[in-house]
Parts: sequence; C-alpha cells; structure tokens
Amino acid sequence: MTQPIIHPIDVILHKRDGLVLNDAEIQAFIRAIVERTAENQLVTDAQIASFLMAVFQRGLNPQELATLTQAMRYSGDTFDAAPLHTFTIDKHSTGGVGDKTSLLIAPTLAAAGLAHLTPAGVPGICVPMISGRSLGHTGGTLDKLETIPGFNTQLNLTQLAGTLRKCGAALIGQTPRIVPADRTLYALRDHTGTVESPFLITASIMSKKLAESLNALVLDVKVGSGAFMPTYEQSKFLAQLMVQTGESSGTRTVALLTSMDQPLGRFSGNWVEVWECIDIMQGQRHAMSHDLIEISNILSGWMLHLAGRTTTPEEGATLADQILQSGEAYKAWLKIIAAQGGDTSIFQNPSAFHKPKASRILKAETSGYLASMDCKQVGWAVQRLGAGRAKPGDPVSAHAGIEMHAKLGDKLEAGQPLATLFSEDPALLDEPEHMLRETLEITAAPPALQPLIHEIVTKN
Amino acid sequence: MTQPIIHPIDVILHKRDGLVLNDAEIQAFIRAIVERTAENQLVTDAQIASFLMAVFQRGLNPQELATLTQAMRYSGDTFDAAPLHTFTIDKHSTGGVGDKTSLLIAPTLAAAGLAHLTPAGVPGICVPMISGRSLGHTGGTLDKLETIPGFNTQLNLTQLAGTLRKCGAALIGQTPRIVPADRTLYALRDHTGTVESPFLITASIMSKKLAESLNALVLDVKVGSGAFMPTYEQSKFLAQLMVQTGESSGTRTVALLTSMDQPLGRFSGNWVEVWECIDIMQGQRHAMSHDLIEISNILSGWMLHLAGRTTTPEEGATLADQILQSGEAYKAWLKIIAAQGGDTSIFQNPSAFHKPKASRILKAETSGYLASMDCKQVGWAVQRLGAGRAKPGDPVSAHAGIEMHAKLGDKLEAGQPLATLFSEDPALLDEPEHMLRETLEITAAPPALQPLIHEIVTKN
Repeated sequence: MTQPIIHPIDVILHKRDGLVLNDAEIQAFIRAIVERTAENQLVTDAQIASFLMAVFQRGLNPQELATLTQAMRYSGDTFDAAPLHTFTIDKHSTGGVGDKTSLLIAPTLAAAGLAHLTPAGVPGICVPMISGRSLGHTGGTLDKLETIPGFNTQLNLTQLAGTLRKCGAALIGQTPRIVPADRTLYALRDHTGTVESPFLITASIMSKKLAESLNALVLDVKVGSGAFMPTYEQSKFLAQLMVQTGESSGTRTVALLTSMDQPLGRFSGNWVEVWECIDIMQGQRHAMSHDLIEISNILSGWMLHLAGRTTTPEEGATLADQILQSGEAYKAWLKIIAAQGGDTSIFQNPSAFHKPKASRILKAETSGYLASMDCKQVGWAVQRLGAGRAKPGDPVSAHAGIEMHAKLGDKLEAGQPLATLFSEDPALLDEPEHMLRETLEITAAPPALQPLIHEIVTKN
Repeated sequence: MTQPIIHPIDVILHKRDGLVLNDAEIQAFIRAIVERTAENQLVTDAQIASFLMAVFQRGLNPQELATLTQAMRYSGDTFDAAPLHTFTIDKHSTGGVGDKTSLLIAPTLAAAGLAHLTPAGVPGICVPMISGRSLGHTGGTLDKLETIPGFNTQLNLTQLAGTLRKCGAALIGQTPRIVPADRTLYALRDHTGTVESPFLITASIMSKKLAESLNALVLDVKVGSGAFMPTYEQSKFLAQLMVQTGESSGTRTVALLTSMDQPLGRFSGNWVEVWECIDIMQGQRHAMSHDLIEISNILSGWMLHLAGRTTTPEEGATLADQILQSGEAYKAWLKIIAAQGGDTSIFQNPSAFHKPKASRILKAETSGYLASMDCKQVGWAVQRLGAGRAKPGDPVSAHAGIEMHAKLGDKLEAGQPLATLFSEDPALLDEPEHMLRETLEITAAPPALQPLIHEIVTKN
C-alpha cells in the first residue's frame, strides 16, 4: 500500500470549508513546513498564512488540535527523559507583569527532587524548564536569568539531562532544533494577524512543553487587565484547550486561572525580579512580595501533588512554603545557577548589584485607596523603561524596571510613594512616568478586590 | 490635516474580526500591494494570503466590495473612452465549454455601431473587449483568436482607441499595466485556496471590466454542470454581486444566468470555434450551432437595448439576428481582424484551415436519447486533447478539440457518431475518448431539458 500524496493546498481547502482534517492531512502540512527549502517550496509562506487564517476562523476540534500539537512537537528534536527514570514536571505561564514565579518554583521543586533521590541517584522530581523572552507588555524568564553574570541558558539536550541529574532542575532557552515548526508558524502568525487564536496558541505552547517529555504540567493562565486574552471566558477556554490537549497526549495537566490585575510582587523588570526572589529564598519576605509568594506556593503545591509528594495540592502548597522558608530552595537555586555557569557571589548582596543610572519616585497625588490600574499599561511602561523589547532580537536592560510601593486596596496618604521607576537612560523616565500616573487610580472608598486564584481547570 | 497611516496588518485584523473596512483601509491595502518592491515589502505575500482567507470567511458588504473593486480598477492604467464620445459596452462570461459568443457578439455590436456614426464620425457603439485565456476546463477567447495568422491581441490603450474609432470593436488581451493588483491577488488566490469566493471573483472580474470605461456591461453567468460555481444559488449570488458592483460604479449592468450543461454549439477547441462562427456569419447555420446563435443573439439583444438601439431586449435579439443574417456582422468581423493584423483570407474556406494530425469518432453504444453529461468533464477532455492548458503559460494547440454530433435530448441509433475528437498527437486521443465515453449518457426515455436562459438579474 502506498500512501496517497497529500498536497498542502487540499489541507487549506478542507479547513477553509469547515471540514474536519484527518491526522494524515495535518501531519503532511507540518512536514511540508519543516522539510521545505528555498529551492523546493513544498508549502509557501502565503499558503501557511492562508491555513492559519482558516484555522483562526474555523477552529479545530479536540482531535485536530491534539494531532496538530503532536505533529509540531515531533517536528524536530525532543528531550527524552526516559533514561532519567524520574518524574518530569514543568510550569508554564501565559505571561504577565512582574511574573517571576518560575524563579521560585524551579528551585522549590528541585529541592523536593533532591530530597528524595531515585535508586539510580537521580532527583525524584526533575523540572526541565524551557523558558521564553520578554515580548510586548510581558516579561521573559530568560531575560531575567541572563542578568546573572556567566549564566548560560543555551544548553543542548545532553547538557539539559546532565543538569537535571545533578540539580533536579534546569532553566534554559528554546533551541532552534526543538519544535522548528512553531518557529515558522509563530513568525508568520505574528505578522499575518493570526496570533490570538486559542487553538493556535494551544498548539504553540503545548507542542513546546510536550517536547520536554513531561509527566505533568501546571499552567498559570492569567486573567484580568494584564492578561493576554481579553476576557475571562477566553482565558478559561484557552485553559480548557490546553488541559485537554496535554491530557490527550498522556501528560497530567492542570490549569489555574490567576489574577493579573496588578504586577505580581514588588519588582517588575529583569535583575530586580531576580533580586526579589533571592530575598524571598534567603528568608526576607517584603510586604510587597506576598502575592508572589502565595501564588508560587500554590503552583508549586499543585506540582508536588501531581508528582505524588502530597495527598492534596493544599498540602503541596504548605510543603512548598516550608522548602522556601527552610533555605532548601535557595540551596537548590545556587546549585542550578552554578551548574549553568552563573556567578552566585552576587546573591550575597543583591541590592548592591542593582545599578540603574536613573530613577524617579512617583507619589500619590491624593489620599485614598489604590483602586485600579490597567496592568497591561504598567507592563508597557516597564518595557519603555528599557526592560522589554519592541521587537524580537532587541537588547533589554538588566536594571530597568519599577518597584511598586502599594498593592490594590492599600490605603495611601497624598505624597506617599506609589512606585519607583528605574532606567539606564534618564530620558526614558518621562513617558513611563506619565503612563503610570495615567493608569494608577486612587479612590476615596476601598475597591472590591479580586481573588488571586479564580478557578482550577482539570480534565474532568 | 495629515492622514493617519494605515498598516496592512490592521486591515487584516479588522476583517478577521468581522468589522466593516472603511474606504481608506481598503485603498491603503491595495496601494501597498501595487507599490511594494522586493526591497520594501509594504505588505507580504503571507499578509495578502491571510487577508484573502479572512475575506473568504467573512465576506464583504456592498460598500466594501465596491471600494475594493474601484481600488483594484484604479491600481494601474485604465482605458479612457471619454474622448471617443460614444457608448461603450462589453460582455463577460464566467467561462464555459465551446463558449464562443464573444466572436459573434463583438462583430454584431460593431456592425450596429458602424451603422450609426456619431457626429464626430465614431461608431455610436464601441466594444473595447479585453478577453482572457483558457484555464482549467474552460476555453479562452484569446487562444481562439490567436489561431488566426497575424492577429495581434497585444494592443496598447492608444491602439485600442484607434481600433474602436475605425471598427467599433477591438478584441485584445490584458496588459500588465491594467489592474496590476488583480495580477498579484489572482496569482496568490490560485495557490492559497481562496479562488472560489464570490466577493473576490466579483472584485477580480469587475475591476478589469470597469477599467475598460464602460457605459454598460452584460454578464453571462453560467449555471449547470460546466459552470465554475457549483450550485445555481451560488451562480445567482455571484450574478447579484456583480450587478450591484457594476451599478454602484455607474455602469449599467445586467446578468443572464445561462445553461452550461453541454458544450455551446458545434465545436469546442480553438480554431474550430472560430470556424463555427465564420460559418454562422457567412450565413451557414449548422444544426449543432443553434443554441450558440440563440444565446449570442439574446446577449447582443440586451447590449443593443442597453445602448438605446431598441426599446426591449427582445427587439435587440431580433436586430442582432438580422445583423448576423445580413452579413453586416461578417463585414465588421473582417474589418476588426484586418485592423489587428489578422490574415482574413483563411476565412474563405475555414474548414480547409483545420488540420489536426489525428481524429477519432466516438459512436453511440446503444440507441436512445442523449440524456446527460458532466459538461466540466467534457471541458477537461477538450483540454487534454491539447486545446487547453494545465498551467498558465503552457502552449495550446490550434486544431485540437471536439465536434459534437448530438445535443442533449437528441435521439440516436446505436453506432451513430456522438462526437469527433481532434488532436495534433494521436497519443492524446485515448484519455479524452475514455472521459467522453464515461460521461455521455444515453437513456431509453427522453430527458427533461433545461432552458437556455434561466433568469435575468438586474439592479432592481
């Protein structure tokens, strides 16, 4: 039996007309993307764009989405965790402002893994965390980590396995050979108006996460003014698609819908966020960091629960907090950073490493309660200070960012500091100051506050 | 007031989300297509493809469609008929098999125009007919005309005006400078699965027709098994869109929904179709040509009526038949062909010019009535004989084609000839013979026949 040849144009026509694509069609389309060359355009950029818009309009059923995700996952190299004989787990966030939970969760889980080695001497839990960079109004874990002198995020898959064996976690960046289909699709989506499809977002995120060979995955799906998806319903739908897709590939997947109505924790930027986490892991809990600590522990708690360390996620959160408080997480952190070439000496006095050339304090103009903000606009202000990038490949500043001196619902006196802005160029302070002043709203009456965790989405 | 800059990506996003595009957005998108260069990709092929698929899915309202059509119409050179001070009119067909009505209608209208010159000595009616080439299962007027030795279809717009002044009609091909936006859009639609949108078809056809500077336009929209649109309703919707779009730009537009359930007339091919028309214009009406003559006269009749020559389209059809019968159309034909450099001596004995290297007669296997056929398959058989092309730019054979010896509903005896196949290569006869044998169905009972004209679509 020879297989019939499937032409990309026919896959486009079928999706265009609302038909259900079969596995062979989806696989052939992704294969054409990966195998095309400049001389042999098995599928053109225009055809891929047309397909993406057809998917945007027509959607994908669960089987189509699972097949697309798997086809993308296996479009290049994948990490094989089987030789480690451990439990692999990761966390993924849909992106926020001041969202540095990865920097607390990875060492927390690594510490838990190191505490119970397998008979082969491998940590009982391993976190092969592949992170991204800042784009738009959201920060990127890689940009934060790369403020640590010497820290190398560009490990190959063999080095990743070695670091996991030794440390229980590794914090690395995407390689060009992992999920190459997503690289092509993402670049095209970005300039053809097909980014905001929950189906395409799911395939993009889940193909990369599943390429990490995970036993379980916890998703932090943001809702609120700083979230990528514009409504609660759309965030929830995305969470459901991702959970469904993860579970259908055999990875236990749970999504938490969490509030992104204000920056998470005290600092938003790059090094300042690392500093905030070091303070926490060293036992210094700044009042502004409480929401960060709480959400990190809840996410870690779910991971510890899924990894079988606790009977419930709530017990997991308690265990995570103990690991943070005891200094075990900090020890694991130092081990990971050192294993990846980072200079751990700067953690002895992290505030001393913070060297912005310019700073400015924004003060409350009236007395009252910090009532609301457009968190996305706060994220853009952070980007304009130099911490983010306008387009892929732009450099980012290590020291730019903001420090919040109040949380939503806090009572303020007129003249009290609201936020401090940091930048490496004094000329970059004006616009972000204006953006923050415009969006931080103080009212006479205390506002109604949102819960930090809105809802948990699981497969049932 | 400076105009805000409109980015193609925003136009894509708006159409993607089902918003109504304003005139400035549509104009900016088309301008970007025409003004882009290899170095400065104001809009990429991928973005155009994404836009086309969004339009395919979301449609265009009448205002959007009119604006898109006008923006395309004015994307390059346009013919200016104003200096002629005449009534300009054309006919367009959505494409069929054996559809050679243009070869009868252009000289018929030219003869009517020459019969009543304006005070400036210009024919009172002018037909600036810009035609296309064979593609897929349908024939192309240009391919037929180019079988006439010396005939030049590549006139520039000045030569077009000159030929109209002298002859009342000109039969030319698209120039690269007329509606360049359609050239780009059509090439992309063809390989991104966005051809079959009635909105995009309307914009493509009407932009090119309106660039001819027409006072009126008669559309022959095919329905039935040989039509481009798969259902009657879709053909009618396309007709309504085209009429609406033509009228909104000030061109009187009428569409006739006509039957394409079998090849029109006696011959399908290239030179053989010219031959059939010469016979008719010379007064020899072969039995197989009756449907062709009838439909040509009805279309010419509508044109004569819209041009003010008759009170009703029915009187127009009667006048058209008189012009054909009297030899006036043939005189006009000779004038047009000679003006465009063609050798008119071959019309003295057109059958002698027919020199296929191979032919084969297909006979009825049983007695009965010719009941049905897939007319599209007949068109593909003609193409495979060498008369059509598999892809743009392929050469076509002048002498390949078929002659039908029976029409739907005709009674046949077993062994009686059904069709004769012609080709320049004997090896090309087998497959088309098989295709015809497969699709030409003979039944014991006479079939129900379709009317030649189903419906007339006008603006009200």
